[in-house]
Amino acid sequence: MASSARPSFSLGNETLQVPLALFALNRRRLCERLRKNAAVQAGSVVVLQGGEETQRYCTDTSVIFRQIASVLMSKNPSVLLTLRGVNTDSGSVCREASFEGISKFSVNNTILHPEIVECRVFKTDMELEVLRYTNRISSEAHREVMKAIKVGMKEYEMESLFQHYCYSRGGMRHNSYTCICCSGENAAVLHYGHAGAPNDRTIQDGDMCLFDMGGEYYCFASDITCSFPANGKFTEDQKAIYEAVLRSCRAVMNAMKPGVWWPDMHRLADRIHLEELTRIGILSGSVDAMVQAHMGAVFMPHGLGHFLGLDVHDVGGYPEGVKRIDEPGLRSLRTARQLQPGMVLTVEPGIYFIDHLLDEALANQAQACFFNREVLQRFRGFGGVRIEEDVVVTDTGMELLTCVPRTVEEIEACMAGSDKAFTSFSGPK
Amino acid sequence: MASSARPSFSLGNETLQVPLALFALNRRRLCERLRKNAAVQAGSVVVLQGGEETQRYCTDTSVIFRQIASVLMSKNPSVLLTLRGVNTDSGSVCREASFEGISKFSVNNTILHPEIVECRVFKTDMELEVLRYTNRISSEAHREVMKAIKVGMKEYEMESLFQHYCYSRGGMRHNSYTCICCSGENAAVLHYGHAGAPNDRTIQDGDMCLFDMGGEYYCFASDITCSFPANGKFTEDQKAIYEAVLRSCRAVMNAMKPGVWWPDMHRLADRIHLEELTRIGILSGSVDAMVQAHMGAVFMPHGLGHFLGLDVHDVGGYPEGVKRIDEPGLRSLRTARQLQPGMVLTVEPGIYFIDHLLDEALANQAQACFFNREVLQRFRGFGGVRIEEDVVVTDTGMELLTCVPRTVEEIEACMAGSDKAFTSFSGPK
Repeated sequence: MASSARPSFSLGNETLQVPLALFALNRRRLCERLRKNAAVQAGSVVVLQGGEETQRYCTDTSVIFRQIASVLMSKNPSVLLTLRGVNTDSGSVCREASFEGISKFSVNNTILHPEIVECRVFKTDMELEVLRYTNRISSEAHREVMKAIKVGMKEYEMESLFQHYCYSRGGMRHNSYTCICCSGENAAVLHYGHAGAPNDRTIQDGDMCLFDMGGEYYCFASDITCSFPANGKFTEDQKAIYEAVLRSCRAVMNAMKPGVWWPDMHRLADRIHLEELTRIGILSGSVDAMVQAHMGAVFMPHGLGHFLGLDVHDVGGYPEGVKRIDEPGLRSLRTARQLQPGMVLTVEPGIYFIDHLLDEALANQAQACFFNREVLQRFRGFGGVRIEEDVVVTDTGMELLTCVPRTVEEIEACMAGSDKAFTSFSGPK
Repeated sequence: MASSARPSFSLGNETLQVPLALFALNRRRLCERLRKNAAVQAGSVVVLQGGEETQRYCTDTSVIFRQIASVLMSKNPSVLLTLRGVNTDSGSVCREASFEGISKFSVNNTILHPEIVECRVFKTDMELEVLRYTNRISSEAHREVMKAIKVGMKEYEMESLFQHYCYSRGGMRHNSYTCICCSGENAAVLHYGHAGAPNDRTIQDGDMCLFDMGGEYYCFASDITCSFPANGKFTEDQKAIYEAVLRSCRAVMNAMKPGVWWPDMHRLADRIHLEELTRIGILSGSVDAMVQAHMGAVFMPHGLGHFLGLDVHDVGGYPEGVKRIDEPGLRSLRTARQLQPGMVLTVEPGIYFIDHLLDEALANQAQACFFNREVLQRFRGFGGVRIEEDVVVTDTGMELLTCVPRTVEEIEACMAGSDKAFTSFSGPK
């Protein structure tokens, strides 16, 4: 059945063939990095903890790696390199390999983690092929949702349709994360969709929708957000907020290239949002002064984007030497690194009308002065808009992996059932 | 939006309203049982470990129940009853409640488990309503699959369609278990469908399909298997095996009533299978002698059925005093109890042609003598047939919860696209 002679994984039919060579290359890359690391002794062996099947609540307590001690002993390794380190996104520590008999070996658990993390930050061409695929299928699924949505439906019906498309057409059995399917004011709830708020609102006429959903294929993620009006037609206010976010998204993508600092991209998006909110009339005054007062974080309290790969919030955002910037908004960035070719990131600016943040800002003398309260009032309950693209940094700029309708015209045409090709954003102009 | 004044959970639209009273009644039932238990001191308090959110591989290590010690202290309980006991299906131990400060209390962890398990074995009317609902929606989804299946599709496309129907129409976000979507010889692999064998075969002309899938609603399960020909028309051999299993399934349902021992139902199914296999010509000789030689387990190596409720393999199968019967087939039964009203069970007889079991039997003098090897050869690679219904034991017999096409005629009509109502089995005649 394989369409290629190379050994590969695939779910058949039209789904992507993932070459086994992808994993061989990654092992080689790690070994090359370790050989260059002066702290690694000759004869060291990397030992990783395998996954195990767990059950709901009661866990199987089978001992794993039972066979390893004798196998390893026969190789007479100088040192076992085990993986221990903090995931800078979750704050939790990965599970270090352990087995009966490990005490007979010399073990080092500090070298491996930063090395393997750096391998994961820079994607190989074969990995990029898989990420292009996860993006292509998930983009198609987003378009199906936009065509199918109708006022009166439940949000979860769209989640279900998205999943069905990803799985039945793309072999993507799982999502990269729990689908976030917000309508109306739910779009201002940043992590909607989990078990406590399970996409169960009825979609209303006049709602903006914010759907953040991505399928996963052989453990590679995608992470895409589309925002659009539930009834297929933007109001003037919806169009104004939407185009403000679209402008910041495209400005960031135009500016991205090797050497650029990611926090500067966050600042760029913030500045454009403030300019646009001023143009719309929600804010007034000097944009420089607004920046000084951290007004950007009132409307976009999350980071501009994060690494993407095997994890949806991929590792490597804060290696040793990269400091988190302790300012509103910026402190939520999952990386503060300088861009380099091969990094894959999300670009996901958003403008949200979150009551408690607005109330806080209105109660804060340094921020309250910028608001036109009457105009702001019109946007209470609006929810929010986020546009999220997945991109890879190239030698000269970036490549866009996501392909969904993005301009107001493209979205309205898609939702009207048009299958016309839309011009996708094609990078720096 | 609620159609009822009683407080309830629901996913809206046409989905079921689950009354909060269901849980209140269950708490009351447990307390009543405990009050009758001479080992329980007055002033005892039940303390259960809550669930917690976990992540893939790296777990959040947040301490839970931080507030409990002081709350409990103020109630001055004589004893804390905590839940500790072995799940007789998984063999694993449930997680006992624990919190900082528990050492200041008197704790008993032996009383609660058998009591709460017995509460779960007998379903209340409100629980039955939810199980009727999970069965109705999952039955509809099975019918959708039968209508949509086409030779050349991947098994997982049908899994995806099933899930989509359950979720979008029934608000069932999760399945009770990983879908088992077997075509052809995969039907002889009893736990097909997991990550190592992920429903990725292409469905062929001439295949029998065996689809074992059930949706879950507010944690209540369903567990339904349909077997049918991929191309919509039974061959003579397929019909013969299918009708053998249907006969055993209906014979068991006709015989079920309070007082009946479940192992006797397993034996009944075995006997009918052996009679039918003799009629088909695969076996010959005395059926009594075949029973003596445990021939039934060659074709049905699993148990006839299990309790169903919050867990798909629900608890309570082997309380103290109920012994597992150590014979082929019977030892796989997840309960060996006597039926009583309010128990919910699956009835899931099957006939499979599993090469290694057939080879073992052919190499076993006591069993080999019954086989007509030439006829058997025709069924190698057939896969298998399972028919799985969910039923509740009533005062006089049983009520069938599942409602899918079951006779050969019903299945062929459904797969031909007929929406005609089919006569569902209506219990003892």
